Amino acid sequence: MKNTLHNKKLSESLIINKFLKKLNFNKLGTFNFENDAGFIKFKKDKKVVFTTDSISEDVDFFLKDDPISIAQKIITINLSDLSAMGVDPHSYSLNLLIPKYINEIWIKIFSKELFKLQKKYNFYLLGGDLSKSKHLIISATFIGHSKLNKVISKNSLSENNDIWITGNIGDSYTGLQILKNKLKINNSKLKDYFLNQYYYPKPNMIGSKLAKYVRSMSDISDGFTGDLSKMLNKKYGAKINLKKIPLSKQLKKLILGNKVSMTNILNSGDNFQLIVISNIKFRNQIKKIAKTNNVKITQVGKVIKKLDLVDDSNNPLNITRNFDHFS
Amino acid sequence: MKNTLHNKKLSESLIINKFLKKLNFNKLGTFNFENDAGFIKFKKDKKVVFTTDSISEDVDFFLKDDPISIAQKIITINLSDLSAMGVDPHSYSLNLLIPKYINEIWIKIFSKELFKLQKKYNFYLLGGDLSKSKHLIISATFIGHSKLNKVISKNSLSENNDIWITGNIGDSYTGLQILKNKLKINNSKLKDYFLNQYYYPKPNMIGSKLAKYVRSMSDISDGFTGDLSKMLNKKYGAKINLKKIPLSKQLKKLILGNKVSMTNILNSGDNFQLIVISNIKFRNQIKKIAKTNNVKITQVGKVIKKLDLVDDSNNPLNITRNFDHFS
Repeated sequence: MKNTLHNKKLSESLIINKFLKKLNFNKLGTFNFENDAGFIKFKKDKKVVFTTDSISEDVDFFLKDDPISIAQKIITINLSDLSAMGVDPHSYSLNLLIPKYINEIWIKIFSKELFKLQKKYNFYLLGGDLSKSKHLIISATFIGHSKLNKVISKNSLSENNDIWITGNIGDSYTGLQILKNKLKINNSKLKDYFLNQYYYPKPNMIGSKLAKYVRSMSDISDGFTGDLSKMLNKKYGAKINLKKIPLSKQLKKLILGNKVSMTNILNSGDNFQLIVISNIKFRNQIKKIAKTNNVKITQVGKVIKKLDLVDDSNNPLNITRNFDHFS
Repeated sequence: MKNTLHNKKLSESLIINKFLKKLNFNKLGTFNFENDAGFIKFKKDKKVVFTTDSISEDVDFFLKDDPISIAQKIITINLSDLSAMGVDPHSYSLNLLIPKYINEIWIKIFSKELFKLQKKYNFYLLGGDLSKSKHLIISATFIGHSKLNKVISKNSLSENNDIWITGNIGDSYTGLQILKNKLKINNSKLKDYFLNQYYYPKPNMIGSKLAKYVRSMSDISDGFTGDLSKMLNKKYGAKINLKKIPLSKQLKKLILGNKVSMTNILNSGDNFQLIVISNIKFRNQIKKIAKTNNVKITQVGKVIKKLDLVDDSNNPLNITRNFDHFS
């Protein structure tokens, strides 16, 4: 984005009245950003799910990034967590820590994208707080709910359970490698494809639809192998058919051209696709739900008793990325 | 605090396993900081209140500050909001954005204080997320509940309603003036008294007890005059008896010695005491509840029809602090 986004002085009341109040969707109990608090009236004796995530300048994004990209990131990381719990979003609160160089145009583009995403995924802004800061930091706490009162908790697995992946993996990682100049792509259309996958992540909201038939779900934030290992929780292993790992045709080209390694793809995070583990007897239901919702889902392997993570030839899959947010 | 607090490298799993998991109090549905999400099972058809606030290095605190002080600040600003809504805390989620110079000892002291406050005010950590950051930023989102299903919303006032203040105001502001070298106090005991009031704020949790008898409540974050004005919402005015404004004996000395002005006290924020507006017919109930809970409460004035904020001689009270978090 151009520098002009970052040079006009903002007031708190301007941000609230001009941009944030719209995001309340006129719902009962929303904070008006004056009261600091809001309420929800939950109708039934049901479980309410919470999830929270933050993104931070120079760590999860750069200030020069398109505000639309930053809005998509803070929403997607949280929606993806809810989806993996098998619930739909209900509402959220937002903490904006805003440095001086953020201006009204930036806030306008950012909040307009939030509005679009709220409409698309059907949730509203309950409230939040604004404060000044040296760097741009955005935290969001999401409230999720489910009609089925079905919340997925991990680790109710059995031997022979199916392991699925939604969508494709690895495109966002490839975009980041291009951005970091670790990967050079001459074809500008191909390059843009991967960069867009990195900058504009989308959550896969199939989780609540699948919940009824699922033993365990996780979004892929620390890589397929890393997140699958966590799901197996040292109680089971998995056998994965590498040829079945779902990849975009663009990424297949790069792998075949030896530009990107399969090991790195399997260890790449921030896909926002889901790993789904289910009983083999629900295989048809799962395929059907995916089809009805126009979501690609691929059965890539199965849960095994032996504690290893192996491919079809029993070769171990390497977990190269022991993800630690402080490393 | 000494510099040794800020030089040992931390890992995410160490912070979670050694310090944060304890704060879950083994409650059902808590995030384990691996799953990213947690749930609450609300038993009745009741309102659930949310509030969120952030504090940020070099804005709300300094890195050299005692971690106990920083823990008290993030908890107090949120508990105080809940109290003003007439509800008790239920649980919270925490976003910790941690720079490299925070070490294990810092986290230990900080989380130990959180544990103490959770025990004292009866709430637990639902979950949260950790990420790295250039500066220390702490966001918390609190969930409140009420046995009475009574949530205070502002602006159901009438003429002649009583206006009350809980506790004393102005001590924290005076501490900040000393810290900023805008006020010089030679008596070291007196100086420490005010600095402690600034560094170690406590919420006044009488709100849920008073809720039944109250028309409007607010904590004092933007100064008594500023917050009262917001409560009156340009629909009413107020007449305040300045001699009744509750002050500590320490602060009275400074005002009488012309070291601090009453106007500044009335405009000083971060007191975390409550402004309470109630019907005159509940005066005895309110006094009784305060006494039972060992809380000082002082009736300082009343709501009037004329839109002005005046003292007993009808002189206007100046709002010197048009609080804007970006100014």
